[in-house]
Amino acid sequence: MKELFPDIPHITFEGQKTDNPLAFRYYDAKKKIDGTSISDIMRFSMAYWHSLCALGTDPFGGPTMERPWNTLDPIAAAEMRVSAIFELTEKLGIPFFCFHDRDLAPEQESIAKTNALLDKIVARIKERMESSPVRVLWGTANLFTHPRYMNGAASSPSLRTFAHAAAQVKKALEVTKELSGQNYVFWGGREGYETLLNTDMKREREQLASFFHMAVAYAQEIGFTGQLLIEPKPKEPTKHQYDFDVASVIGFLEQYGLTPFFKINIETNHATLAGHTMHHEVALARSNGVLGNIDANSGDTLLGWDTDQFPVSTKDCALVMYEVLQNGGLQKGGLNFDAKVRRASWRPVDLIYAHVAGIDTYTHGMLIAKKLLKEQTLKKHITKRYAEFDTSLGKKVLERTTTLKELETFAIENPIHRPESGAQEMLELLLERAIHSPV
Amino acid sequence: MKELFPDIPHITFEGQKTDNPLAFRYYDAKKKIDGTSISDIMRFSMAYWHSLCALGTDPFGGPTMERPWNTLDPIAAAEMRVSAIFELTEKLGIPFFCFHDRDLAPEQESIAKTNALLDKIVARIKERMESSPVRVLWGTANLFTHPRYMNGAASSPSLRTFAHAAAQVKKALEVTKELSGQNYVFWGGREGYETLLNTDMKREREQLASFFHMAVAYAQEIGFTGQLLIEPKPKEPTKHQYDFDVASVIGFLEQYGLTPFFKINIETNHATLAGHTMHHEVALARSNGVLGNIDANSGDTLLGWDTDQFPVSTKDCALVMYEVLQNGGLQKGGLNFDAKVRRASWRPVDLIYAHVAGIDTYTHGMLIAKKLLKEQTLKKHITKRYAEFDTSLGKKVLERTTTLKELETFAIENPIHRPESGAQEMLELLLERAIHSPV
Amino acid sequence: MKELFPDIPHITFEGQKTDNPLAFRYYDAKKKIDGTSISDIMRFSMAYWHSLCALGTDPFGGPTMERPWNTLDPIAAAEMRVSAIFELTEKLGIPFFCFHDRDLAPEQESIAKTNALLDKIVARIKERMESSPVRVLWGTANLFTHPRYMNGAASSPSLRTFAHAAAQVKKALEVTKELSGQNYVFWGGREGYETLLNTDMKREREQLASFFHMAVAYAQEIGFTGQLLIEPKPKEPTKHQYDFDVASVIGFLEQYGLTPFFKINIETNHATLAGHTMHHEVALARSNGVLGNIDANSGDTLLGWDTDQFPVSTKDCALVMYEVLQNGGLQKGGLNFDAKVRRASWRPVDLIYAHVAGIDTYTHGMLIAKKLLKEQTLKKHITKRYAEFDTSLGKKVLERTTTLKELETFAIENPIHRPESGAQEMLELLLERAIHSPV
Amino acid sequence: MKELFPDIPHITFEGQKTDNPLAFRYYDAKKKIDGTSISDIMRFSMAYWHSLCALGTDPFGGPTMERPWNTLDPIAAAEMRVSAIFELTEKLGIPFFCFHDRDLAPEQESIAKTNALLDKIVARIKERMESSPVRVLWGTANLFTHPRYMNGAASSPSLRTFAHAAAQVKKALEVTKELSGQNYVFWGGREGYETLLNTDMKREREQLASFFHMAVAYAQEIGFTGQLLIEPKPKEPTKHQYDFDVASVIGFLEQYGLTPFFKINIETNHATLAGHTMHHEVALARSNGVLGNIDANSGDTLLGWDTDQFPVSTKDCALVMYEVLQNGGLQKGGLNFDAKVRRASWRPVDLIYAHVAGIDTYTHGMLIAKKLLKEQTLKKHITKRYAEFDTSLGKKVLERTTTLKELETFAIENPIHRPESGAQEMLELLLERAIHSPV
Repeated sequence: MKELFPDIPHITFEGQKTDNPLAFRYYDAKKKIDGTSISDIMRFSMAYWHSLCALGTDPFGGPTMERPWNTLDPIAAAEMRVSAIFELTEKLGIPFFCFHDRDLAPEQESIAKTNALLDKIVARIKERMESSPVRVLWGTANLFTHPRYMNGAASSPSLRTFAHAAAQVKKALEVTKELSGQNYVFWGGREGYETLLNTDMKREREQLASFFHMAVAYAQEIGFTGQLLIEPKPKEPTKHQYDFDVASVIGFLEQYGLTPFFKINIETNHATLAGHTMHHEVALARSNGVLGNIDANSGDTLLGWDTDQFPVSTKDCALVMYEVLQNGGLQKGGLNFDAKVRRASWRPVDLIYAHVAGIDTYTHGMLIAKKLLKEQTLKKHITKRYAEFDTSLGKKVLERTTTLKELETFAIENPIHRPESGAQEMLELLLERAIHSPV
Repeated sequence: MKELFPDIPHITFEGQKTDNPLAFRYYDAKKKIDGTSISDIMRFSMAYWHSLCALGTDPFGGPTMERPWNTLDPIAAAEMRVSAIFELTEKLGIPFFCFHDRDLAPEQESIAKTNALLDKIVARIKERMESSPVRVLWGTANLFTHPRYMNGAASSPSLRTFAHAAAQVKKALEVTKELSGQNYVFWGGREGYETLLNTDMKREREQLASFFHMAVAYAQEIGFTGQLLIEPKPKEPTKHQYDFDVASVIGFLEQYGLTPFFKINIETNHATLAGHTMHHEVALARSNGVLGNIDANSGDTLLGWDTDQFPVSTKDCALVMYEVLQNGGLQKGGLNFDAKVRRASWRPVDLIYAHVAGIDTYTHGMLIAKKLLKEQTLKKHITKRYAEFDTSLGKKVLERTTTLKELETFAIENPIHRPESGAQEMLELLLERAIHSPV
Repeated sequence: MKELFPDIPHITFEGQKTDNPLAFRYYDAKKKIDGTSISDIMRFSMAYWHSLCALGTDPFGGPTMERPWNTLDPIAAAEMRVSAIFELTEKLGIPFFCFHDRDLAPEQESIAKTNALLDKIVARIKERMESSPVRVLWGTANLFTHPRYMNGAASSPSLRTFAHAAAQVKKALEVTKELSGQNYVFWGGREGYETLLNTDMKREREQLASFFHMAVAYAQEIGFTGQLLIEPKPKEPTKHQYDFDVASVIGFLEQYGLTPFFKINIETNHATLAGHTMHHEVALARSNGVLGNIDANSGDTLLGWDTDQFPVSTKDCALVMYEVLQNGGLQKGGLNFDAKVRRASWRPVDLIYAHVAGIDTYTHGMLIAKKLLKEQTLKKHITKRYAEFDTSLGKKVLERTTTLKELETFAIENPIHRPESGAQEMLELLLERAIHSPV
Repeated sequence: MKELFPDIPHITFEGQKTDNPLAFRYYDAKKKIDGTSISDIMRFSMAYWHSLCALGTDPFGGPTMERPWNTLDPIAAAEMRVSAIFELTEKLGIPFFCFHDRDLAPEQESIAKTNALLDKIVARIKERMESSPVRVLWGTANLFTHPRYMNGAASSPSLRTFAHAAAQVKKALEVTKELSGQNYVFWGGREGYETLLNTDMKREREQLASFFHMAVAYAQEIGFTGQLLIEPKPKEPTKHQYDFDVASVIGFLEQYGLTPFFKINIETNHATLAGHTMHHEVALARSNGVLGNIDANSGDTLLGWDTDQFPVSTKDCALVMYEVLQNGGLQKGGLNFDAKVRRASWRPVDLIYAHVAGIDTYTHGMLIAKKLLKEQTLKKHITKRYAEFDTSLGKKVLERTTTLKELETFAIENPIHRPESGAQEMLELLLERAIHSPV
C-alpha cells in the first residue's frame, strides 16, 4: 500500500534520554506494567475529525492545513482518509481511533444516499482492519454541523429535526456496532439554548431524556454491547448546554431514570470551561462510578473557548491517571486525543509532533501516578486526616444512624478549636517532587 | 422607643415621578395586584449579617462603617442590633429579616454559654415582634467563620467539627422555629475542598448527605414546618463547593434520597460565579419544582468574587420575577437582600439608599413580568416555536412511546433543511421595549 | 431598481408607544436635538461583513443564512451585495456602512487581479452613491483570513507576508479615499502570538510600529484626510493580541511616536473580553483625547469569546453615549454595528429586527445621556466629591508644585479618619431611575 | 537568642534524591553557577505581611494561624515579629525580606506617634542586621487598609487622604533607606475606582502621576539609590486599578514623563487576574527594559481573586527565569514570596514547607532555564523563523526606511500562500522534555 505520508516514520520508543521529537521517551507500547502492556493501560485513540477532517479554519480564518486529499472531490477525499487514519495510528503505535458519522463520509442529499455512502466507507474500514491492529474506540453522530440542528437536535423545537437526529443516531449505532466500536458517545453540541427568551427548558430536557431512552432501547435491540457515554460541555457553540458538567449529567441521569445505562466521557477543555479542574471532573465521575472515557486534550484557562490543544502538562496528566488507575482503568473506554494542532501547524508532521507530545506526556503521567499510589504519597496523609471518623460514632455518621442530639452531646464533651492542618503546601511540594522524580 | 437612626425617615411610596432617592417609585406595599398586596408578592427581607454585622472589611482593608453600636461591647452591640433590625425594616416597610445564629449573638466559650446568650437575644426579638409586623423569613447557622470549620463543617475530616456543626444546626433549627421562621437555609460555605490532594471527595459528600438527613429528621422531630433550603455557590471561600449550582444540588438531592425534603435558595451572584445567568438558575429550579427562595443581590461578571451588590438592573429583576410569577410565587420563601453596601458607603443612610434601590427595582421588575405574562409577549412565540411537537408523533416523543425506527421513517419522509428562525433579536427587542414601557 | 428584499419595508419612526418591531420608538432620524439631527448625532453604520458576507458558520456548524446571493458565483454575489448594502441601509434610514477590502470582492489569484476586481466593485458602489445618501464610515483591510496571515500580518515572521499586508493596506487606503470614507481602521486580528515559545515579542511590536508609520506616510501621500483608527482586542483569534485594550494602545502609540496620528475604535465585546466595561474603555479613551469610533455591539460576559451581539441594553448604551456626548460627539467617527444575528436567526428580516434593536436602544441611550448631562444628575455629586482639591494646596497637587514634605505638614494638621461616602448605591439608583424616566 | 520556632530546623540542601520536605533538592545557596552563587542569582525574599502578620482571615472566616505572638499586645507582637523574620529567613537560608510600614509597627493615634513607634522597630531591625546576613529587598507603604484610603490614596477625592498618603510614603522612603532597602515599591491597592458613576478618571490619574513625581523628587532629595518599582494589579480590592498590567503601566509612565524613574514589580497572580500569563508580563517588561522585581507566587486561574499561593509549578517558574536570565538577572530586584499559606495550614511549619516548595521550584526552574538558553532549545527555532527579515528589505522595515509602495512591489514578485509552520506542538514537547530532563 502506498504511503500517504512517506516522510513520516514509524515512531519508536527510544527511552528517557532521547532528544528526538519523533520518538517516545515513555511510551513503550509493549512493555508490561503489573502484567498489562502500556498500550492496554493507556488505550490511546486518534480523533478522526480533528486530525483528518479539520483544515485549520477558525472564526476569523480559512483553511491552512496541507493534506494529501485537499484537492480531491469529497468522496475521494473520504476514501483517502480511511487510509490515512490507519497509516497515522499505526505509525504512532496506538490502538484506536474515534469518529463521527460525518467524519467518515459527507452528508448526501437524502438519508438513504448518505447512509449508502457511509456504508461504503465503513466497508473499506472493515477491510482495512483485517490487516491492521487498529480498532474503533468509539463512534458518534454529528448532530451539530448541519443547519437543521441550529436550534438543537434532540432538544430542537422542530420534530423533523428531532426525527432526523434519531435516524442519524440509529445509523451511527449500527455503524459503530458493525465496526466493533467499544463505546458510543453522545455529545450534544447544540443541546442547550441560545436565549431563554425563546426556550422551554423543561420541555427540551424532557425531549433529551426521551431521546436517550430510545437510543438505549435501540442499542439493546441491535445487541450493541459497548458502553454508552455522555460527554458534558458547559457552552460553546450554545450559550448553555444541558450536559454542563459531570455533576449536571449525574443529576440528569438520576432524574430521568438513565443512570444504569450511561457513563461519562470527560474532556479536559470542557471541564475547565465549566470552571472545574479536569482532576475534579474525573474524581467526581470516579467516585460516582460513572467514569467512562477521557477526551485527552487541554485548554487555556485564560482563553474562554474550546482550544482543544494537545496535552503537554505532565502534572495534569498524572492527576488524571491517578484517578483512572484507582478506577481500575477505563474498561472499554480509552484516552482519545480530542485535540487539534494549532492553525499555523499546517504540516502533516505537526500532527505527529502533537500526538507524540500527548502520548508521551500521558504515559509519563501514568508512570508517576503508579508510583504515587504505590508509595501512598498522598493516601497516607488522607487516611490520617480522616482518622476521627474511624471511631464508632464516626461510623454511625457514615451509616446515617446517629442524630443531631447525640452529636450535640459529643460536641459538648469534645470541643475543638482547630482541626489538623490541611498541609496543602507540603502535599503540593511532595506532588511536584514526584512529578520530577525518576519513574 | 428611642430611634437609633433618627435622621432616617420612613420610606414612602411617592409614585413614578418622584426624584427622591428616599422614596419609592414602584413599591406601594399595600397596593393589591390581582388581589394580593405587593408586600405579600415580593416578601422582601433584610439580611442581618450584611446590614447590621458587617463593618466594611475586605481582604485588603479594615472596618469603615459608622454604626451606633461600634463602640459597645459585643453583647450590648448584639442587643442594640435587635432594635436596629426592627427600626430599619419598619422604616423601609418590608416584612422580613434573615439571620445566622452568630449574627444574633457572638459565640461564647462553650456551647452552653453560647446558646444561653443566643436565647437571651431571641427572647428580645420575640418580645419586639409583639409590637412589630416584621417577621423572620429564614434562619441559618454560621458554619464557616470559626477556625474549627477551616476544613469544612459537615464535610470536615474532623468528627469533632462535624459534631459541633450538628449541635449548632440543632440549636439554629430550634431558634428559627421559636421565632416562627418560615424557612431554614443551609449554605455550606466551607463544604467543599481547598485541594483534592488532601481530600476524599466521595466520603465528604456522604458525610454531607448524612448531615442533611439528620437535619431533616430533627426538624420533623421538633415540628418545624418551614421549608428547608439549600443555597448553592460554586466556590469562595473554598476552591470548590459541593453545592456548586442548581443542577449540582438537584443531582445531589436525587443521589442521596433528599429530594422530597429540600428546595433551593438561589443567589444571583452565586449563579454568575458558577457561569450561569440568574435567570437560568431560577428557571432551572422552577422547571424542577425546587424554587424556594431568592437571595436578591447582584454581582459583577467582570469580577471573580462575590461582590454581593444590591440589585439595580430592572431587566435582570424582571426576568427573575418572570419565573417567580410562573411558579405561583415563592410560597414560604421570599426575596432576601443578601447584599452589602460598598465599603465606601459607610453612612447608615447608604444602607437605606441601597435597599430602596433593591426594593424598587425588584418591584418594577415584577410589574413588568406581570405584563409580559399577561400579554404573552414571549409565550406566544414559544408556543408557536414548539408547535411541531403538538402532533401525535410529537406527543409520543414526550411520552417516550416512540422509537428511533419510527422516527427514522418520519425523517425520511419529512426532510428539513432549516427549522424556524430563533428570532432572538426580535425577542430581545420586545423584551427591552417591555422593560421601558409603562407599567 | 428591483428590490432584493421586497418583504422588508422602510423602517419608520412611530414613537414611544409603538409595539411594531419593524418601527422605531426613538430613532427619529431628522429630528433635531440642540440643532443637530439625530442621524448626525448617532452616525450609525452597517457592517458589510457581518450583515452581508457572514453566513452563520461557527466553529461547530456550517452556513445557515438565507440570502438572495447564496446560489450565485462569488463575483455575481459580490455585485449583488452592493445593491443589498444600499437597500438595507436606506430602508433602515442610517447614513453609513463599513467594509473590509475582502468583503467587497473576494481575493483572486494575484494582487493585480484582486485589485482589478475590487476596483470594479468600488466603481459600482460609487455609482450607487450618486443616487443614495448612504456613505462610507470607514474601510479596512482583512489581514487575518488568508493562510498567509496565520502567524500575523505586520507582526508575521515572514517578510513576504508583511509585504503582502503592506500592499493590501496601500490599496485599501486608496479605495477608502476613493469612496470618501471618513475613517480608516486597523484591527490586527492576528497581530499577536499563539505561543511565546516561538515568538520574539519585542521585534514583532517593532514591525507593527513600522507598519503603522508607513501607513500614516502613505495616507498623507495620497491626501487621505480621514481619521486613522486602531481597534483594540485582547485575544481571539490569537492567544494574545498586541492591541489588547485602550490602555495598551495608548502606551504603544506613545512608545513608538504614533500618538499624533491615531485615534481608537472601541468595540464593546472587545472591551469585555479584556476584562473592562465598555464604559471604562470609552471613558479612558475620552479622557486621553483618543476616542474615535464605537463598534456598537455587545457580548455575553459569561461567554469567553466574541459573540458580537446587537446592543439591546439601554443602560449600557446610555453610558457609552454619556461619554460620547461629553466628547463633543465622535467627529468623523460613528457607531458601527459590528454585530451579527445569531446563527439561528437566518431570515433576512432578522437582520432588520436586530438593527432596529441596536438603533433604537442606542438612540434611547443618547436621549437619556443628554438628560443626565443637562440635569447634572451625576456631575453635581462628582464636583462635590472632589471639592477638597479646589483649595490652593489641592491645585498645587494637580500642577505638581508641592512636595511630600509640604503635604506631610498638612496631613499632620488635618487628620482624616473617613472621607466622604462614595454613595455608590444612591448613584446607581439615580441612574437606574434616569434610564426609566421619560425622555 | 531564644528561638521562637525551636521545632523548625535549619533547612539544608540534600540533593535531588531527598524525600525530606524540610530539605532542598535544588537550592544549594552557595553553589556557583557561572561564577555567581545561587542565592545571588535568585535573591529570594520573605514577605513580612503574609508570613508574619496575616492570620488566616478570609471574607468568610476569622483568624486561624498559630503564632507565638498571638496573645501579645500589638507592640510586643511587633517586636517579636522582628525576631521571627530573622529566624525564619536564616533558617531557610534566604537573603531578604520585604515589608510595608504597617507590617513593622501598627498605626498609632497620630502621625508623630506612629512614626516614633516605627522608628523603634526599625532600630531593632538595624541592630538585628548587625549579626545577620539578612537584608531588606524592598519597603513600601500600606495605603489601603485604613478607612481613610477607602476611596484611594493618591487617587482619593480627599486632599487630606492624599496628604496622609504623601506623609506615609515620605516616611516609608526614609525607613527603607535607613534599612538599606534595595528597592521601594508602589502598589496602589485602592488607586482605581469602585464605580465610574462617582469618578473623574482623568483627574485621578493626574493626581497619581503628581504623587509619583513627588516621590521621585523626595527619593532623590534624601539620596535613596534603590530602584523605584510599580506593581500592577488589575482589580481587587477595587473594581478597576489604574496600574492594570505591565502594558498599562508602561503607557502611564510614558504619558506622564515617568519612564526614566520606574521599573515594574510583576506578581504572578496579578498577571493572571489581568488575563495574561506571568510569562507574558515578564517578557513584555523585559523587552521594554522595565523588569524590576518578581512577586513570586501563583494563583488559580479558575478562581477570580488573588489567592496568593506559593509557586509550585516548575514549568511556570522556568519560564519566568528564562526571561530573568535573558534580562541579565534582576539587578537590585529579587524574587519576593508574596504568598500566603492556605487558611487551614495554620502550623508554623506549614510556612516552612511552603517556602521550601517555592524556593526549590524556582531554583529548579532557573537551572532548567539556564539549560534552555545554553542549548538554544527554543532560540534556534526563533532565529530561523524570522530569517526572512535578515534580508536588506527586512532590515529596512525594522529601520522604518521602506514604504508601502516598495513593499507592494516586493509582494507582487514574491507571493506567499503559507509561511513556515509555527511548530507550536513540537516546541511544547521540547519544553516539557526540558522541564523533565536532568539539570
